[in-house]
Amino acid sequence: MTDAKPFPLNAWYPAAWGTEIDRILRARTICDKDIVLFRRTDGVVAALEDACWHRLLPLSLGRLVGDQVVCGYHGLVFNTAGRCTHMPAQQTINPSACVRAYPTVEKHRLVWVWPGDPALADPALLPDFHWNDGDEWKGEGGTFYSLKCDWRLVVDNLMDLTHETYVHSDSIGHDAILDTPFDVTHTDKTATMTRWMIEIDPPPFWAKQLGKPGKVDRWQIVTFEAPAVVIGDVGVAPAGTGAPRGDRSQGVNGAFLAAIAPETETSCHYFWNFVRTFRTDDEELSRALQRAHVNDGKGVYDQDHVVLEAQQRAIGRHPRQPFYNLNIDAGALWARRILDRMLERERTASSGPARAAE
Amino acid sequence: MTDAKPFPLNAWYPAAWGTEIDRILRARTICDKDIVLFRRTDGVVAALEDACWHRLLPLSLGRLVGDQVVCGYHGLVFNTAGRCTHMPAQQTINPSACVRAYPTVEKHRLVWVWPGDPALADPALLPDFHWNDGDEWKGEGGTFYSLKCDWRLVVDNLMDLTHETYVHSDSIGHDAILDTPFDVTHTDKTATMTRWMIEIDPPPFWAKQLGKPGKVDRWQIVTFEAPAVVIGDVGVAPAGTGAPRGDRSQGVNGAFLAAIAPETETSCHYFWNFVRTFRTDDEELSRALQRAHVNDGKGVYDQDHVVLEAQQRAIGRHPRQPFYNLNIDAGALWARRILDRMLERERTASSGPARAAE
Amino acid sequence: MTDAKPFPLNAWYPAAWGTEIDRILRARTICDKDIVLFRRTDGVVAALEDACWHRLLPLSLGRLVGDQVVCGYHGLVFNTAGRCTHMPAQQTINPSACVRAYPTVEKHRLVWVWPGDPALADPALLPDFHWNDGDEWKGEGGTFYSLKCDWRLVVDNLMDLTHETYVHSDSIGHDAILDTPFDVTHTDKTATMTRWMIEIDPPPFWAKQLGKPGKVDRWQIVTFEAPAVVIGDVGVAPAGTGAPRGDRSQGVNGAFLAAIAPETETSCHYFWNFVRTFRTDDEELSRALQRAHVNDGKGVYDQDHVVLEAQQRAIGRHPRQPFYNLNIDAGALWARRILDRMLERERTASSGPARAAE
Repeated sequence: MTDAKPFPLNAWYPAAWGTEIDRILRARTICDKDIVLFRRTDGVVAALEDACWHRLLPLSLGRLVGDQVVCGYHGLVFNTAGRCTHMPAQQTINPSACVRAYPTVEKHRLVWVWPGDPALADPALLPDFHWNDGDEWKGEGGTFYSLKCDWRLVVDNLMDLTHETYVHSDSIGHDAILDTPFDVTHTDKTATMTRWMIEIDPPPFWAKQLGKPGKVDRWQIVTFEAPAVVIGDVGVAPAGTGAPRGDRSQGVNGAFLAAIAPETETSCHYFWNFVRTFRTDDEELSRALQRAHVNDGKGVYDQDHVVLEAQQRAIGRHPRQPFYNLNIDAGALWARRILDRMLERERTASSGPARAAE
Repeated sequence: MTDAKPFPLNAWYPAAWGTEIDRILRARTICDKDIVLFRRTDGVVAALEDACWHRLLPLSLGRLVGDQVVCGYHGLVFNTAGRCTHMPAQQTINPSACVRAYPTVEKHRLVWVWPGDPALADPALLPDFHWNDGDEWKGEGGTFYSLKCDWRLVVDNLMDLTHETYVHSDSIGHDAILDTPFDVTHTDKTATMTRWMIEIDPPPFWAKQLGKPGKVDRWQIVTFEAPAVVIGDVGVAPAGTGAPRGDRSQGVNGAFLAAIAPETETSCHYFWNFVRTFRTDDEELSRALQRAHVNDGKGVYDQDHVVLEAQQRAIGRHPRQPFYNLNIDAGALWARRILDRMLERERTASSGPARAAE
Repeated sequence: MTDAKPFPLNAWYPAAWGTEIDRILRARTICDKDIVLFRRTDGVVAALEDACWHRLLPLSLGRLVGDQVVCGYHGLVFNTAGRCTHMPAQQTINPSACVRAYPTVEKHRLVWVWPGDPALADPALLPDFHWNDGDEWKGEGGTFYSLKCDWRLVVDNLMDLTHETYVHSDSIGHDAILDTPFDVTHTDKTATMTRWMIEIDPPPFWAKQLGKPGKVDRWQIVTFEAPAVVIGDVGVAPAGTGAPRGDRSQGVNGAFLAAIAPETETSCHYFWNFVRTFRTDDEELSRALQRAHVNDGKGVYDQDHVVLEAQQRAIGRHPRQPFYNLNIDAGALWARRILDRMLERERTASSGPARAAE
């Protein structure tokens, strides 16, 4: 691990769905750090370096006893603080014997880990991902584990929806996306792309969800929150019913949710969901929407999957330049700029959080 | 791509059989350059850099509309000159937005591309490969795509037929090949190895083709034309009927044809054919000859395939020295020398064609 | 090959079971050297560099004729001294045309090769491995070929049997192993770990072998002989019958035998056996003991296999430091120290045996 990694370390990253973590040892690599996750007896999620202090065997190959992990090779025991509490055949324990413990928070149905300096891990820095809570907004998502691309390519993808017209021409693409100007705004840690398409014919997907004939006003309001989250507020309402001015009551509103963690420099875990506020009790619709996104290679996100991995392979073969950019990239460019600043701050911090993170 | 690549760039290389290229986008890597090939509406073959100017997605994942390629990610459109003619959601097109266009020529049933400086791409420099035209000489060949060896190992293999005695001892090998001296001549761009075996017993393959008893005069006249082509004029005639002095009328004459393109430094595409002037209407014979060469691992070229890839693996593990050479290598050595000179000329050209080629 | 390789070259390493070597050409890589092994007509095992002098094709792809190897590409012939005795189509043989010949000895049912300077290959330096002879001690072993770990990890594993408690808790593990102090002694080329567990309940495996009720005295006397051999003298006797003082007559005695050869820096061949002096005529017991060790992933050594390869992968990902050590590692540490000295001696030898070995 060096400063040259393309991901900030002092940040919360999604590591797992809450439902994945139980009384077993689960291995996952986040930001190039091998981590073992498990649920403590009190229900809290613990995250330790997945390599025994002694001989580096992944602790995930050992077993969980109470709130401690027993290494599967020589039986060293580590508590959830990462401190070794037992060594085989000796009474005295080397006080430096420990593995890293990673701060975790379980929120919005996801487990978030902080791969950097634990002293800086403030739960207040968690991104807003409440759409995923399962309360007001409903939906069933999924995960692409070890998607073979730089995680930032996923951010680029989601911050520019013109790609829908080409990658997803049969479902949500629409020429209006191209013809309609959009705005980009930003804060220190967010970038938002807003596009309103007024009085257009709805694309097949939204026509079906709305279930009313006629022209619609369609919106796409996509917000990146550095470093790991993208929320897309999307929907349509009958044209002229006031959606652009805030009254979406006649329309249908959905949101695509993306929480993305770098696994390595060229792979990532992509936790996604598509939630909605309409027909929230319709479980068949939830399943249909899930299938629309991921369906054995034929879903909308499967189509992105193919593009993202092909793009990464091409980048690997053509290390030529920074990307060239178009107007449509304005949202993605702000996202990249915010990330670059985060990286730069980590690099130059005099107290060296990135170093401390090692 | 650097000057250190072992293949000249300013040259014609075979990229595909003509029959492979149609109204679809076909990806192929030639000399480490990812290329997308397609047939224009007027029938001419176009070849573009297979990476969108914008975000590097392979254009071969997009689609062909008329004579233009639409990128499958954001819909940038490129014409056959490689110039971007459309950008999504913007009127002004960045004039520098283009991908490389590679000169092509379709000739002798193959599509040839010029990976280097387009200004130097002269069709007059195409190698003579007329044996493959399908007119006077008949045969059905094939291709080894991504053969896992430096393409020059294929040239070495074909320029020294003593290997037939060991690799192909059951078909075309013969001790006479070893016992008979041979001549090597050369020009600036060709090297020719000539061996006449006078009054010998024919090997099984040729005995069958000739269909006459008795001794034969056998010839092997193998010509390398830099950088990518080897032609083997081979055959037998009843001994004493004048073949060595030019009268092959009593004999049977075949030719093995090899057009080889480097794919990477350690892999190549090998387009081959075996053609003949005898029993040219016998399609069963054509198929039998094809099977004799490639047949699920049991053909003559399959045997070479195993040797060539094992040799490449050994070279990878033993980066010890230039090869040691034997007398039998005289033909291959001339081929290498001609190639080395081509590389040297590209390196030192003050106008920098190799650089321009990037 | 450089001095930086982690294995001494001037040493005997196991290359094959004697029964594996016959009148065929068998390829094996030992200490990063590709070697072809075969049995001469007089029964002696020969070992040559597995790469033809001419163009590097593995000689193992050729054929054996008498006591000579004919290259499968161009027919060069090499005798068992590695000297080329025939070149195709030429009378004069380049006197420098040869491949390396490796000294071999067949002993204790294994073929041993000396990858370093042949002048130093003294059979007197062979390790004591007589337990494997099949006379007094009986058993049927096996081999892990290309086990994906640094061979020294296998030595570490065997020199510290506390791992049995965790990795093999269901068969030979026992808390007594942890509770009982052990001694480590060493000589210039051996390290021995001795542990006597007095008046304990036997673990399941040994209780079954002993077939008598009651407490036992259990011993584990594990000797490493640099660089490639580990012998574990193990067994139990009824408590109080004098085993610790030398009378094992009432007990059962086994020995695990390990002869390990580095294949590359991160892989090895591990020849193992488990032999015994009790019920030596019981072939069903021999087979049962073999299955107890290796059984489609469920045997004792299969369990080690998983741990060793996971450990190697972790080392590859965490190139952080020398290992941290525990008291239990005293035996392994002496083994490593002896190996380090061997390496150091090779590095500094003024007459340069390591260089000569190339």
